[in-house]
Amino acid sequence: MTKTQEIYFDNSGTTPVTEPVAELAYQLMREEFGNPSAAYARGIRAEKMLAEARRRIAETLDVNPAEVFFTSGGTEADNLALRGVMQANRRRGKHLIVSAVEHPAVLNTAKALADEGYEVDFLPVDANCQVDARDLQKMLRPDTALVSVMLVNNEVGAVQPIAELSHVLKDAKSPALLHVDAVQGYGKMVVSVPKLGADLLSVSGHKFHAPKGTGFLYVKKGVHITPQMTGGGQESGLRCGTENMPGICAMGLAAKMAYDELDERLERVAEVREALLNNLGDFPGWQLNSPEGALPNVVNISFEGVKSEVLLHMLEEEGLLVSAGSACAAKRDKLSHVLQAMGFDRARIEGAIRFSFSYLNTVAEAERAAAIVKRQVAALRDVLQPKRR
Amino acid sequence: MTKTQEIYFDNSGTTPVTEPVAELAYQLMREEFGNPSAAYARGIRAEKMLAEARRRIAETLDVNPAEVFFTSGGTEADNLALRGVMQANRRRGKHLIVSAVEHPAVLNTAKALADEGYEVDFLPVDANCQVDARDLQKMLRPDTALVSVMLVNNEVGAVQPIAELSHVLKDAKSPALLHVDAVQGYGKMVVSVPKLGADLLSVSGHKFHAPKGTGFLYVKKGVHITPQMTGGGQESGLRCGTENMPGICAMGLAAKMAYDELDERLERVAEVREALLNNLGDFPGWQLNSPEGALPNVVNISFEGVKSEVLLHMLEEEGLLVSAGSACAAKRDKLSHVLQAMGFDRARIEGAIRFSFSYLNTVAEAERAAAIVKRQVAALRDVLQPKRR
Repeated sequence: MTKTQEIYFDNSGTTPVTEPVAELAYQLMREEFGNPSAAYARGIRAEKMLAEARRRIAETLDVNPAEVFFTSGGTEADNLALRGVMQANRRRGKHLIVSAVEHPAVLNTAKALADEGYEVDFLPVDANCQVDARDLQKMLRPDTALVSVMLVNNEVGAVQPIAELSHVLKDAKSPALLHVDAVQGYGKMVVSVPKLGADLLSVSGHKFHAPKGTGFLYVKKGVHITPQMTGGGQESGLRCGTENMPGICAMGLAAKMAYDELDERLERVAEVREALLNNLGDFPGWQLNSPEGALPNVVNISFEGVKSEVLLHMLEEEGLLVSAGSACAAKRDKLSHVLQAMGFDRARIEGAIRFSFSYLNTVAEAERAAAIVKRQVAALRDVLQPKRR
Repeated sequence: MTKTQEIYFDNSGTTPVTEPVAELAYQLMREEFGNPSAAYARGIRAEKMLAEARRRIAETLDVNPAEVFFTSGGTEADNLALRGVMQANRRRGKHLIVSAVEHPAVLNTAKALADEGYEVDFLPVDANCQVDARDLQKMLRPDTALVSVMLVNNEVGAVQPIAELSHVLKDAKSPALLHVDAVQGYGKMVVSVPKLGADLLSVSGHKFHAPKGTGFLYVKKGVHITPQMTGGGQESGLRCGTENMPGICAMGLAAKMAYDELDERLERVAEVREALLNNLGDFPGWQLNSPEGALPNVVNISFEGVKSEVLLHMLEEEGLLVSAGSACAAKRDKLSHVLQAMGFDRARIEGAIRFSFSYLNTVAEAERAAAIVKRQVAALRDVLQPKRR
C-alpha cells in the first residue's frame, strides 16, 4: 500500500517546527540545560540565551525587550492580558470590550470575567469580518478599562483595523488599554506595536514554526497588570515558573527566521493561495468567506450542498488536511461564531472549510488540493442529490 | 586551556533531559506535529499520544488518567491548585493552611490570596524541617478550605508526613482538601496518591529529566476547582491552550523511565550521597542541615566561618556546580526561609550549601567534589582568619 502524500493545509491550527529551531530546542534540553536562575556560569549562559530570545522578539515588534514576557502559549498570554489588566485596574473601571469574532481564549475569558462581576460588551463585525471604529467609539464608557481585538481572525484571515481603534481611544482621551491577540498575524505580516498602538499583544509560538507550549505577551512599560502565576520571581514577577528554555529560545530563533524571510514567505503563501483559488475557478457552487484584504495564509470557502465535516473526511482520504473553522472547535460540532457574526446563513456556515497555508507549502500542492476538492465535492453532491445526474 | 570536567550537583535546581526523552520531543516537533484538537488522523494520532502520556503518569501515581491535568510546570500546577480550589470553594471557607517551608510557588501564592482577602496560616516546622500533625489539628478551622504541604523540601530534602496530615483531616471530618507539592519527590521516590491521601498533587517535569515548561496537577475526581486559563476547552476545560505535545509526551516517557528504574536510581543516588559525606568525614567545621530520613537526592551542609555565596564561586572554578538554597532564590541574596524556619542561626544559614544529585552522578564525582570542597573551604578560612595559620 502506498501512502498518499500529505498536503498539510491546516497551518492556522498548528505548524511543524523547522529543523534549525527543533535542533536548538534539542540542544537546550541536552547540553545547555541550565536554569537561568542559577548563579554559576551554566546558569548565566542560560540567562544570556533567554535575554537573546527576548531581544530577538522585541526587535520584530519594535519594542523594548523588557516589555516582552514569556508564557506557555497564546491562551496564557490572552488570559494574562485580560484577567491581569481587569484585576489591576479595578479602580479605572469594570468595563471590558472585546470583538465578537475573538478566539475562545479571549471570548471565554471575557465571559469568565463577566461571571466574576465585570461588564463585557461585544463589538460586532460586518460581512467582511471587520469591526468598525465608530462602533468602538459608541461603546466606549468612562469606566472602560480594556479593549481586546484580534489582529487577524483565525477562521477567515480578516485583518482588523487596530491602528484605527487605537486612535479612537486616544481621540476620546479614554484611559482604556488596548490588547491585541496577534496569534494568527505574528510571523506572517509586519506586527509593529508602535504602529498598531497596542498596549498589550499576545503571540503563540506554534503558529509560526516554533514548538507548542511557547508564546509571549507584550506589555507596554507602565501598564498595570496583576500576575496570574506567583512564585520564584521569574519574568520580573509577572509570570513565575522556571523558564521553558528549549521552547523560548527555539521561539526566538523561529521569530528571527520568520521576519528575516518575511517577504519570501509572504510571496510563497500568496502564490499558493492564488493557485488554489484559480484552480477552483469556475467550479460550481463555492463562495469565498474570507474578505478582500485578508491575510493570504487563511482561505475560508463554503461549498454549496455539502457539510464540511463530511467533506473533511473525504479530503483526508486523499491526503488533504484542512479544517472546518478553528482547531479548538474542530471536535465540538458547533456552528462557527465567526461566520455567524459575519451574518452568513446556516447552510453556508455548515459548508465552510478553512485552508491555511505556510511558506512550506507549494503551488503544486495547491493545484493538487483544488483537484481533490472538486472531485470530492462533486462526488458528495452526487450522493446527496442523485437527481442531478 | 583545558576545561575542567563539570560535576553537576544541582539537580534540585534543574536536570538535563535524557537522550530518548529529548529524541521523542524532537520527533513531536518535526514529524508528529499534529494538534490533538484536529479531526483528521494526524490530530487523532496526537490525541492518542497525549492520552498515552497521561496514562503513563497516572500509572505512576496509582490514579485515574482523567485526574491528571497537564500544565506548563510546577509553579502553574501549584497556582492552579491554590487559586483554583480557594476560588471554587469560597462557600466552604476562606481559610488556607500552608507549611512555612513551602516553595515560593506555594508561599507567594498563599500571600497573594491573603492580599485578596483569604486567610492564611503557616504550619511551623521543627529543627528537622518536619511539620507536626498535631499542629495541623490545632490550626484547622471549620472554614479551612485547603491545606497545602510539600512532599519533599527543595532545600534540605526533608520528607513531610503527608499521610498523617491526611488522617488529621479525615479524623476531624474536615471538609478541607489536601494539596501536595510533590515537585522534589516525584520520580525520586514512590508517590502513591491513595497512600498519601492527597486531593491534589503538583509535579514539575524538569526536576526528573523531562523538558522545562512541563508539569501536571493531579486533581481527585469530584474536587471543585476553578480554571485559571479559559479558552478552547483543552484538559477538560480546566487548563485551556494547545497542549505542549513535545513536552508532555517527553514528560510521559521520563516518568515511565523514572519509575521503571526507580530502585537502581535510588541506590545510585544513595551511594553518591554516602560517598560525599564519608569523604567530608572528619574535616572540621561542617554541619549537616538535612535531617535524618531526608530524600538522599538533597544534602544541605553548612561550613563554619565561610559564606556560601563566596564558596560557590570557588567551587565553580574547580567545576563543581552546587547552590545555596533553591535556584529561585539564588540571585536574591536572601536568607533561606527554610533554614530560618528550622531555627538555625544566621551564621549557619549563611554558610549553607545544597548538593543535589541525580542517578546520572557517580561516586567518583562525589569523591572529587568532597576533595574540592575541603580544599576551597580551608583556603577561604585561611584568607578570612589569617591568624589561624
